[in-house]
Amino acid sequence: MPILIEARFAFHLPVPTDVLLQFEAAEIPEQKILANSTRLSTSEHCARVPAQDEIGERIWIRAEGNFEVAYRAKVELTRQLEPLENFAALSPHNMPGGTVEYLFDSRYCPADAFQPFVDARFSNLSGGARIAAIRDWIYDNFTYVPGSSTTATGAAESFIVREGICRDYAHMLVTLARASTIPARYVACYAPGVDPPDFHAVAEVFLADPYTPDGGIWQIVDATGMADPADTVKIGVGRDAADVSFLTSFGPNDFRSSSVRVTKE
Amino acid sequence: MPILIEARFAFHLPVPTDVLLQFEAAEIPEQKILANSTRLSTSEHCARVPAQDEIGERIWIRAEGNFEVAYRAKVELTRQLEPLENFAALSPHNMPGGTVEYLFDSRYCPADAFQPFVDARFSNLSGGARIAAIRDWIYDNFTYVPGSSTTATGAAESFIVREGICRDYAHMLVTLARASTIPARYVACYAPGVDPPDFHAVAEVFLADPYTPDGGIWQIVDATGMADPADTVKIGVGRDAADVSFLTSFGPNDFRSSSVRVTKE
Amino acid sequence: MPILIEARFAFHLPVPTDVLLQFEAAEIPEQKILANSTRLSTSEHCARVPAQDEIGERIWIRAEGNFEVAYRAKVELTRQLEPLENFAALSPHNMPGGTVEYLFDSRYCPADAFQPFVDARFSNLSGGARIAAIRDWIYDNFTYVPGSSTTATGAAESFIVREGICRDYAHMLVTLARASTIPARYVACYAPGVDPPDFHAVAEVFLADPYTPDGGIWQIVDATGMADPADTVKIGVGRDAADVSFLTSFGPNDFRSSSVRVTKE
Amino acid sequence: MPILIEARFAFHLPVPTDVLLQFEAAEIPEQKILANSTRLSTSEHCARVPAQDEIGERIWIRAEGNFEVAYRAKVELTRQLEPLENFAALSPHNMPGGTVEYLFDSRYCPADAFQPFVDARFSNLSGGARIAAIRDWIYDNFTYVPGSSTTATGAAESFIVREGICRDYAHMLVTLARASTIPARYVACYAPGVDPPDFHAVAEVFLADPYTPDGGIWQIVDATGMADPADTVKIGVGRDAADVSFLTSFGPNDFRSSSVRVTKE
Repeated sequence: MPILIEARFAFHLPVPTDVLLQFEAAEIPEQKILANSTRLSTSEHCARVPAQDEIGERIWIRAEGNFEVAYRAKVELTRQLEPLENFAALSPHNMPGGTVEYLFDSRYCPADAFQPFVDARFSNLSGGARIAAIRDWIYDNFTYVPGSSTTATGAAESFIVREGICRDYAHMLVTLARASTIPARYVACYAPGVDPPDFHAVAEVFLADPYTPDGGIWQIVDATGMADPADTVKIGVGRDAADVSFLTSFGPNDFRSSSVRVTKE
Repeated sequence: MPILIEARFAFHLPVPTDVLLQFEAAEIPEQKILANSTRLSTSEHCARVPAQDEIGERIWIRAEGNFEVAYRAKVELTRQLEPLENFAALSPHNMPGGTVEYLFDSRYCPADAFQPFVDARFSNLSGGARIAAIRDWIYDNFTYVPGSSTTATGAAESFIVREGICRDYAHMLVTLARASTIPARYVACYAPGVDPPDFHAVAEVFLADPYTPDGGIWQIVDATGMADPADTVKIGVGRDAADVSFLTSFGPNDFRSSSVRVTKE
Repeated sequence: MPILIEARFAFHLPVPTDVLLQFEAAEIPEQKILANSTRLSTSEHCARVPAQDEIGERIWIRAEGNFEVAYRAKVELTRQLEPLENFAALSPHNMPGGTVEYLFDSRYCPADAFQPFVDARFSNLSGGARIAAIRDWIYDNFTYVPGSSTTATGAAESFIVREGICRDYAHMLVTLARASTIPARYVACYAPGVDPPDFHAVAEVFLADPYTPDGGIWQIVDATGMADPADTVKIGVGRDAADVSFLTSFGPNDFRSSSVRVTKE
Repeated sequence: MPILIEARFAFHLPVPTDVLLQFEAAEIPEQKILANSTRLSTSEHCARVPAQDEIGERIWIRAEGNFEVAYRAKVELTRQLEPLENFAALSPHNMPGGTVEYLFDSRYCPADAFQPFVDARFSNLSGGARIAAIRDWIYDNFTYVPGSSTTATGAAESFIVREGICRDYAHMLVTLARASTIPARYVACYAPGVDPPDFHAVAEVFLADPYTPDGGIWQIVDATGMADPADTVKIGVGRDAADVSFLTSFGPNDFRSSSVRVTKE
């Protein structure tokens, strides 16, 4: 059953400004783009570059004045999913080169400091079973409170205040996964069921899969419980939210409005 | 004139442990490896994976007990270097996809917060001239004090205490460059002149170069003033020091000793 | 020439809640209260307790529903003021017991870390001359931007972003003074000239004065340049803003409105 | 049964330096000093000032070269102690003025941020019963690891790494108590049973006691479990460790040695 996506946002650039956009469903094997349409206001410059890990594209624009983005897509998902508990951990020494950076601390995910916590709290679990337990622990101990965090909030603060939005839930899961020596990245996405409807964010972890050439497979995990991994359309990935904003402005920018609608056909 | 490198380090693993090593001169166009030898203690497992940005390799081992690394290399450098002041800034909208992540905040480099500072302090400068001014500002305002920082120290703390080692100088430069919308990465390296002799770290910034297919070129910058970019042998690159340690242990590890000797033939 | 103060604020307590208020001009030798009037909504409980360093009072209330505070006062100031440059530093070993706590780190003022900075930047200055230089440095390097900081912002963050409001300016001055081994405290106050009119905050430093029994005297310093120390009416003092809020609620509280008017008769 | 204390420490001051010492058992009603002897190396200047909350004294010295402190005391304790569970919480609006500052955030105790955590974890408990539960939670979740923390470590970091020394245990308890609107301070002390023998630190909380003029009483709490409140000899109190170090040097200082011995007669 395809996923239908409609996203619009508008902003105003008081002076000519470079802006980086990343809002389109990524064309990757597990996501078949059946139809799509991207309309952008006219700009002095517009170029596409590949995004992180070659998942999706970023769009560079240089523009001035009012700028609007209107995006529609119909996406069929063929993601290979299994209960997390079915996956063993991949030993570090078997991890492919491209996953190694996802073991390390990043801006919002200071994983190293959390090693004693995960070792004590999830001591008897490993691999996917540990990730499932971490997901449930976050779900049980955190409260979803729109407006409770800012762009400065990282997992160290979230671990203390125990509230936040999808971004904070994803950072917390990424942090505790990396502290468990499981590669984890941040995924900007669209998903039906997100309430209030908005751009969404989840985590993705790399677990052992003997049937893949790499020896492992990325699996989506949403600690907010709002999105079903089977229905989640990836936009892009990164170390954490620092890497995959739908809008990054390199100069003054007045954000005006946004609306996101995601449904199953 | 080739650079001669001799590096040795030893550690003890009380139990079978996965360890990630990255200490060899990277084979990249600007670095010709004339001769080299890597000797490692025997291990249960040993595998090479490409390192970040395909610069150099990481070595995964799984081993127990005493482990020694002995590395020798003779490297000829053909790095294209010009005074930083000769380089203009590359407009963000012209930046290739692979450089975009180097604009963003990372674990030790919270660049965003430094925008007002760089805008005020280096307001009339851009591109390579700004980088040169940033390098000189760090050199003038920081004191090189071995032991003054820890693995928890990031550029926010260094900016306050104004002392540190090569790692902290590199983080500070990377941070202020990114705050200036200039892509910057962290480079683990060998260089003659480092005192006391040790593994070294510098920064690298991406500036406009109309003669390259990408429109830009990475240039090495060492705010400590100890290493000449012409003689600097890159081991690997990353967002910051979180990404390019010569030794990362995924379990208990007693570090025993290290020695580094770098000379010009 | 007396200072006339008019302050009003209102809030709503959805459930019976304990609230701490501190908004009245302190009765201290240098401040003669010529006339004053405090009107509070009725409350289940209302008690006055002495505030920090016996400067001013705090009012505990327990109330529910709408609560309003209306305060008017006419205050004559007889503060002993001299140019900061006239004051020498008091040697630490001569500091009275009550000033010692104002040498130490507090929540928003991590002074210790700033020792290398003040030693390098203000090396040739001591006592009042150093404080004047610190005040001028903050004034020159910071931008007053309402809304740029939050209640989580401390001097470490302000030193990086170099913008803030009176509270941040006061924290920065307190921090750099303590880093210079000069006792410094935070002062909540009223002052004409504050723009937009509001509760104000300044710093106070303890410098040598051979004519006092203590050997020293507190002097007001306002790095924002908005308030004249001669016209500044102290409400209360503390280590930093954590100690002297005009309203601290120990339960849910909807803040409704406030207005402050301070004039010279 | 009196407590016998023997403490010695030595340091070297390369240049004439001001130093603040605080190491003697405080003369307070609950602590009767039966005998004591303080021997200090000769110094250019030596003066005693009252310490925080008038509990104990601080000694200012100005000296150069080798400096030694030798302290012996015999102290009889008549502390009024009851199981924590017997104490109700004191309503904020009944708290005396001198306890109010112990509700607020301090350098190492960012209590505000922990409100959601204590509300969730200890929701059904108040007053002394909540403090007992907090003490037990820290004891159960933290590991005592000498050397695991530094003077920069606060309760936010300790809450994540879940290891530390007495100082960190005390900071954590103070933080969670204040987050529960219970005044809490940091107590430097001597106690038998501390292993390895050293200066010790515990927390003290202010709980309701209808038989006291203030309506409340301070009660010692040691989350490390090493010291019995009945045998704990207070040196001094403060907001946190920033306030009560046994040695604070305002200039270069080479610490040489210390030994502490505390026994019951």
